[in-house]
Formats: sequence, C-alpha cells, structure tokens
Amino acid sequence: MARMRIGLAQLNPIVGDIEGNTRRVREMIERGADSKIDLIVFTELVITGYPPKDLVLREQFVDRNIKAVNDLAEQSRYGPTAVVGFVDRNKENKGASLYNAAAVLMDGRIATIAHKSLLPTYDVFDEHRYFEPAESTTHFELSVDGRIHRIGVTICEDAWTDESCFAGRRYRRQPVAVLGNAGVDLVINLSASPFVVGKQMYREALIANHAKSIHRPVLLVNQVGGNDELLFDGASFVCDAAGKTVHRAAAFREELSIVELVEAGNCHGTLNAYPENIASIREALVIGTRDYVRKCGFENVVLGLSGGIDSAVTCAIAVEALGADNVLGVSMPSRYSSDHSVTDALALANALGIEIRTIEIHQMHTALENELASHFEGLPPGIAEENIQARIRGNILMALSNKFGRLLLTTGNKSEIAVGYCTLYGDMCGGLAVISDLPKTTVYDLARHINAHAEREIIPQSTIEKPPSAELRHDQHDQQTLPPYDMLDAILHHYVELDESVEDIIAIGIDEQTVRRIARLVDTNEYKRKQMATGLKITSRAFGVGRRMPIAAKF
Amino acid sequence: MARMRIGLAQLNPIVGDIEGNTRRVREMIERGADSKIDLIVFTELVITGYPPKDLVLREQFVDRNIKAVNDLAEQSRYGPTAVVGFVDRNKENKGASLYNAAAVLMDGRIATIAHKSLLPTYDVFDEHRYFEPAESTTHFELSVDGRIHRIGVTICEDAWTDESCFAGRRYRRQPVAVLGNAGVDLVINLSASPFVVGKQMYREALIANHAKSIHRPVLLVNQVGGNDELLFDGASFVCDAAGKTVHRAAAFREELSIVELVEAGNCHGTLNAYPENIASIREALVIGTRDYVRKCGFENVVLGLSGGIDSAVTCAIAVEALGADNVLGVSMPSRYSSDHSVTDALALANALGIEIRTIEIHQMHTALENELASHFEGLPPGIAEENIQARIRGNILMALSNKFGRLLLTTGNKSEIAVGYCTLYGDMCGGLAVISDLPKTTVYDLARHINAHAEREIIPQSTIEKPPSAELRHDQHDQQTLPPYDMLDAILHHYVELDESVEDIIAIGIDEQTVRRIARLVDTNEYKRKQMATGLKITSRAFGVGRRMPIAAKF
Repeated sequence: MARMRIGLAQLNPIVGDIEGNTRRVREMIERGADSKIDLIVFTELVITGYPPKDLVLREQFVDRNIKAVNDLAEQSRYGPTAVVGFVDRNKENKGASLYNAAAVLMDGRIATIAHKSLLPTYDVFDEHRYFEPAESTTHFELSVDGRIHRIGVTICEDAWTDESCFAGRRYRRQPVAVLGNAGVDLVINLSASPFVVGKQMYREALIANHAKSIHRPVLLVNQVGGNDELLFDGASFVCDAAGKTVHRAAAFREELSIVELVEAGNCHGTLNAYPENIASIREALVIGTRDYVRKCGFENVVLGLSGGIDSAVTCAIAVEALGADNVLGVSMPSRYSSDHSVTDALALANALGIEIRTIEIHQMHTALENELASHFEGLPPGIAEENIQARIRGNILMALSNKFGRLLLTTGNKSEIAVGYCTLYGDMCGGLAVISDLPKTTVYDLARHINAHAEREIIPQSTIEKPPSAELRHDQHDQQTLPPYDMLDAILHHYVELDESVEDIIAIGIDEQTVRRIARLVDTNEYKRKQMATGLKITSRAFGVGRRMPIAAKF
Repeated sequence: MARMRIGLAQLNPIVGDIEGNTRRVREMIERGADSKIDLIVFTELVITGYPPKDLVLREQFVDRNIKAVNDLAEQSRYGPTAVVGFVDRNKENKGASLYNAAAVLMDGRIATIAHKSLLPTYDVFDEHRYFEPAESTTHFELSVDGRIHRIGVTICEDAWTDESCFAGRRYRRQPVAVLGNAGVDLVINLSASPFVVGKQMYREALIANHAKSIHRPVLLVNQVGGNDELLFDGASFVCDAAGKTVHRAAAFREELSIVELVEAGNCHGTLNAYPENIASIREALVIGTRDYVRKCGFENVVLGLSGGIDSAVTCAIAVEALGADNVLGVSMPSRYSSDHSVTDALALANALGIEIRTIEIHQMHTALENELASHFEGLPPGIAEENIQARIRGNILMALSNKFGRLLLTTGNKSEIAVGYCTLYGDMCGGLAVISDLPKTTVYDLARHINAHAEREIIPQSTIEKPPSAELRHDQHDQQTLPPYDMLDAILHHYVELDESVEDIIAIGIDEQTVRRIARLVDTNEYKRKQMATGLKITSRAFGVGRRMPIAAKF
C-alpha cells in the first residue's frame, strides 16, 4: 500500500524578515528530510510573514522574497517536496500586479506555482489592495513509491467559504470544489487564519464539509504567533475523506507535525487537544504579548499597577509571556487612592515575583493644579481635573520606558475603550494594549482562570471582589457613570461586534435610554481609539484595523 | 438648435448625516429648477458623504440611504432630472453585497441606477471592502426640447484610468470607452477625488483624453470639503468633445455651477482659475481644519505656540479657518526656552489678533524631576528628560481642551513625524494634525506665502529665519540630530512618497550613511505614527490610512 508522509510546518515568521524566515523554512525542510517525509507544507506568505501590509508595495521587497524562493528551490534537490507561501509577480503585465502565491519546490526547481483565488477584503484583511485573484486552480503530481498523488493547492480564503456563498454572486466557483471535480487525491491549504475565540471549531467544521463533499482528505497548515494586533493559533489539522479530524497540531506554538496518508482518504496522525475558550484567550494574549515585545526588539516591559483587575490581569499575562525578571510594575497613588490600591498592587507583584516601585504623584499634581488655578478659576472641577492625574501617571511611565528601554504596556479593557472611559495620553499611554479586546466581564473570567490555572492566588481575591474604580476623585466608582458591566458588555456585543442598530438592541429587551446613551458614547469616542495603542485581537470584531469608522461624522 | 442646461452640484456632505445631506441635495435641486436646468449632477455617495467607511456595514445605514433616494425620486416630478450618488443593494443576492451607485431621478421615479465598475482599493481607498463591481455600464436617455440625449453615467475611478491600464490585466474594458462605443452623447462622472497638490491638472488631462477618444464631452462633478484626513477640492469641470476644458467650478467651496451643451460636442461654461500649488495647499488646509473642527461638533480650538515655524503656520491656518475669536494660543516656556520663543509667539498672536496665555512649566518640571531623581540616579540625562517637558505641555494643553471644550490642534510637520523627531503624548497630543503632511521645507514655503497673501507680516520674520529647535535642552538645534531639511525632505520624498529602496536613493547621489540612517528612523518610528492624530492629506502619500505598515517587523 502506497503511503505518503506529510509534514505540517507551522512557523512563527517575523513580518518582513525574509532572510530569517527563509532560514527557518530551510531548517524545517531539513528536519523533514531527517523524518523521511515526502511532502512538507508551510503557511501562507511564510517567506514574508503574514500580513506584510504595505511592504509588498516596495519593489525590492518582492524581489528579495522571489529570490528567497528560487534559492530554496535549488536546495530542494535532496529533500522532500515543499510548498511555500510567497508573493509572486504577474508576468503577463511585467509585474504590475502581484499574487498571493504558493510555490511547489521539487527536484531542484519550482515545479508549479498556485495563486490565491479568493482575496479577503473585509475585517482586518486588505488583500485586494495588494493582490490580483487567480483565474484558475492549481494542482501538482507527486510520485511516492511509484504511485502518483494529485495534490490540489489552495490558500487560506480559498477554503474559507462553502459552495452556498457563491449563489447569486458573480465570482468563479468554490476553488476546493473545482479541485474535487478535477479529481485530486488531496487538497492542501496554506493558511494565516487569525485567532478568534471559538474559531477553531468553525475552521474544522468548514474543512470537514469540504472533505466530505469532495470525498478526499483536506490538510490545513496555519501560521502561529503574533504579528501586531493579529494572533495566530497554529493548530494545523487534517480532515480525512469522511470529514473526521484525524490530526491536529499543537496550538500557539511552532511545530513540525507529521501525518501519514495510508490510502485514498485515510490518514494517521496525532490529535492534540485545542484549549478551552478561556484558556485559549490566555494563551493567545501570552503569545501576542511575547511576540509584539520581542519582534519590536524589546527585552522587557513596564506597566502601572493600580490594584485594579485590568492591570493585574495584564501583568500576569506579561509575566507568563516574558518572565518575572522582565516585568516592572509601578504603583502611583494619589490623594484619591484607596489603601487597597497600593496593598493589592503589592500583593500581585509579590505573587508574581516581579519588581514594583512606588512613585507618589501628589507633588506634581499640586504643581499642575497651582499653575492652572488662575485659568480654571470659578469653574467647578470635572473631567479635566480627573484626566490631569492620569496624564501625570502616563508621563512617569513613559519616562521610565524611555530611560530604561522598556516597552510600556497599557491596560485598558474593551468595555472602557468602547465608551471612552479612559484618558487619552493618560492610562491609554503605551505601545501594546494587551486586553483591549476583552470586555470587562471577560477580564474577570480570565482573572479567575489565571488563579485556577496557577492553582494559587495570583490575582488578589480583593482585586477580583472590590467594585471597579478609576480613583480619580473621592469615592468614585465605575457604576456611577456606566451601567452594570454585564449589561454594558451585552450592549457592546450587539452594537460593536454584530453591528446591530440601536432599535434592534432595544428590541431584545435592554433599557432604551441606556442603549441610546452607550451607542452614542461608542460613536463619539472614535477619536480616542484613533490614537490607541496596537491591541491584541481575540473577538470577531476588535477596535483597530478591522473596524474603520469615520471620526468627523454624524449618524 | 437643442440646448441642454446642466448643473454641477458640488456639495460638502457630512459623512453619515443622511438626513442633512439629503436636505441639501433637495435644496440644490430646487435652486436648479429655479435656474431652468434640465439635468443636475451630484457627487459620488453624496447621500452618505464620502468615505462612509464601515458605516455601510450597518444594515440600517444602508436602509436609510435607500429610503432617502426614494423620497428624492418622488419629489423629482417637477424639477430637473437629478443624478445622485448613494449605496445600493444587490437585489440578486438579497442585499448580501452592495454597490457604489448613482440613481437617475426623473419624472417622480428612479429611471435607472448605474453601478461603479472599477473599485479603487489602494492608497486611502478600500472600496473592495464594501462594494461589488458592476458587470456592465449604464446610460439613460433625457429628452430636452424634443431631442433625445443619451447620457453615460460613470463614478469616479471608472474614469480614472485610460485604456492602456487594461493591457495585460484581466479586468473588463475601460467604462468610458465602452460608453463611447455605445454611442452616448455625453459622459458624466460623479466623483469624490481627494485633493493632492497638482492633481487637478492631471484630472483635467485624463478627462480630456477620454473626451477626445470618444469624441464626446465629459463632465466631472467632484465633492468639496474635508472628511477626516481626506480633503476634497471641488473644481468640477467639463471637457468638450475636443478635450478642451470649457467649464471649471470654484475650488474649495460649495457651488452649483451651470454649463450649457449647445450642440453635440460643444459647451458653454465658466472657467474659474484653479489656485497655484502653494495657495491650493493653504486653501486645502483651511477647509480641512474648518470641516474637521465643525463636523466633530467643536466651535473653537487651542494650540501651543512655541515661537517656531510649525505652530505659527498651524495657527495662521486655524485663524483663517475659524476666525481669530475661536483660536487660543498657549505659550509654555521652560528653563531651556530662548527669549524669542515667547516674543515670537506673542508677535504672532498679535498679528493674528488671537488670545494668548502664558503658562510656565518650571514648577511642574522640577516636581517631576524630583520624584524621578532616585529612579534615574547615576544615569546621564537624555531623551527621557527631554520628553518629560513635552509631556507636561501636552498635559496642560489637554487640560485646557477638556475644561473649555476646545479641540487641541497638534503642530508636527511631515519631516519630523517621519523620523520620530517628536514626543508621543507630548507635542503629538491633539485631535487634528494640521500640517502633518507638509515636509518642513514646504512649511517654510507656506509661511512665506501666508505673509505674501496677507500682504503683511503674520508669521514673524524672526520665526522664519531662526534655526529650528525643539528647545528641550540647552542650545539644542534640529540640525544637531537631523541632516539639513532640504536633504532630509529629498530622502523622505523618495523613501516615503515614492516607496523607493535605500539603494535607489543612494544611487541618485545622496550620502549613503545619511540615507540608511533616515530610512531606519522612518521604519522604527512606525509605532509613534500608529498613535498620531488624524492628519490632513495633501501629498500622494501621507502617513495615515493610505500607508499601512507593520510595526513589529524587520525589513
């Protein structure tokens, strides 16, 4: 019986680092050769890293990525056949347009090149900005022990829709279906499919449907690691011809895993468990934080610790990502700070084993108030006075960041960023917003999970239990300004993630006045989010490149 | 002889304000009826304002814009035929996809709807994100005094390319050429074509070529006003069948202008002069500032005045846009400020007739230094200490902004933003970056132009002549850190605007070490620009939505 051994190479490329990425592709191919595999499949645009964004508009960038693939091809004489994602030029118009492509490297040459047919241009994706769609599908033949295997090549979105999406549309047909009709033995898919909570189940169901409808196994290799706001979870997998997941690689780490195709439609592999939802969020934020910090060239980070839940969770993630020695916490109490704001911050630092410094803001606060007193005379105190304190803290944290070369982490959650319950240039200061896509209720869930996962109290119980407060005036509490967080998060889910109208949200039974007020807050705070730090995306709709709202607007 | 009178209605819509925009369309139609015109042509997506961005993903938003067009149609019974840009649903797939569309309103109904064929998805444009391309072109028939005119309808990008762009591409044919072949008498184009210095000449040459190649007049109506970073200059125009511009509306203001088609190919109109390059920049920044401030709901602004050229030019633009009464300047001298930093700021405020306040930062600076002293002990002073001062100024300006409800203008130029010669959360604070797309050399040109245009010294001569300095340490000058601005701006033009490689720029004869250093500064300061304010775009490539670079990257 003819067997084919296939390697699924899920790498964590650095965007733009053509030389480094290519070197690691080469190492993986060599490891694959040692493991006697016949075919090794890499991820989408592995040579450039995904998404390369406007780097692909640079001629030299495309030149160098093509040269890298040609070099790899020469070295393919003795190793397994390799399928590698890269940016290809359209030769028909002298390179005036580009393709998102996969090169099949075999016997010392490029045997064929497949181009992506369906170009996602929604949410965080801009592929029509860069690429031209393929006109037709591509497959290649691979001879193993005298038997010829016909292997169809697809790239990410090509397999992301089923036939039903094409009804009434004017696109060409579904690429996997076309390959099935062409009689291939196997379809492979090179992916860079960003993590969203719960998405892996959807991915596997989708690929299972393809496999069942063409009666052939389908293999998907997914990128791993964080690139700016996008997190990739790996968890590459194979569905057999019956649509059963017979192989699943590890989630959230680099791996070369191997699956064996034993006869048409049957495969042997290894089934790694995919983490539960809340654990997947933790792992996604950990890899996203580690990769952003390291890929930006930093070793360590600094963040403010208020004793509250947001900074506590952010800090715990940072420690898991970078190690306790690389995280510095700063407590900055003011005249409005409660005692527990300091004690809870110290307890957290102690539990995590990180250094914490205390810097009083009283003197600076007074100096600023004195200087502004004559200008503010006769006006009641309000938001302006509250923000001043948050901005003094931002100034201190940035001074420490600049002085010691530590990246500043910002700690805002999705609920407060949505309604603008945060200070621009104050607590919004920082290079990376670790939990900016977590609604406040999820932040609490994650805090409890962090303690359960560690089997000890990392996030102080008092931090979890006390009512949340910005502590920018006496006896301030979030719920003086905002509705209860479970109601707020429900409204935001419908309004931001599902893009539903105010009327639709009222119709599901939430208080009309509250819905209207929150929707208006979301709309009018677009200007703050315009200037927010890069935030790690974990939901289907995060603030950032996937949500492009006008600022000077009225609706 | 059959004459047809056509109104070119260049409006300044507010993005998302369907009700307000529709009301103004109706008013224009009524004015057109008073002027006995036969046809009135509006701009691209005039009902929603361009660009509506992700608002079009909201079902209710699309519903309301369609209802607005239906209401306008009913009222078209007695007025001229009107062509109105809006978002249409694809009825074939039950609205699962959308079109960028133009409705022809005639005799109380929608006579026909044209869809945009070519969807720009480059630079600042994301139309593939929202719309599906038309499969075919559309024209309609209009009877005037018993003669039938066949009028082809195109939308912006449909006329933005000539036939040569389609060689080797797989797109359908050039829409204007297709309409020419179909024998139309006139082609109209509904545009929202953003201002770029010198672009009008290119626009008119392009449309002239279309007119000549189809031997028919072509009429283009362009949006006017600022919507976030995009500025629209109006200057709608008509080329006759010989390709001659026979009509040009005013630039940078709303207008209903009228052209008369006297016989096939001949037209009578009015030729407004288009402003010279430097004047066009001034007018673009003025309308962009006014519209951003007003469309965001603000009446007035505040900005820091350092005595330097950037804040002086920004302030002069703000006064022209909003009036002297609506602009507040703030001088914030420190221990490192020169005497002229205060005197030049006062002279500027005096020349412009605006209020200026002086707030010393010495006390706050000392308080912050004292608090950080123990943490910074033994380390030489550097960037961290410099940034602290800029961030204290940012805090003061934001306090005034918050307290008095004034939008804060930020004053950085393109050269310093490119290389990161600016302080995040310091001088980068603000809602609108007025001159962020002007290289420093252009800022000087504009300063001289402002004085020449006013026929008096608005920007103090001393501000124009003194060597630029951030004044964040003793005897600091920009040229201690940066190359001369003419060399810096030349490098940036090639590297940022033309996306050329370091090697190409060295090859044109600029010092290799300088080119490499500047390119590296541009790359490593992407994180600052991620958080910059909305900046008004005047070049072919501005920082902002038209330039999408990864941050955690290596190339």
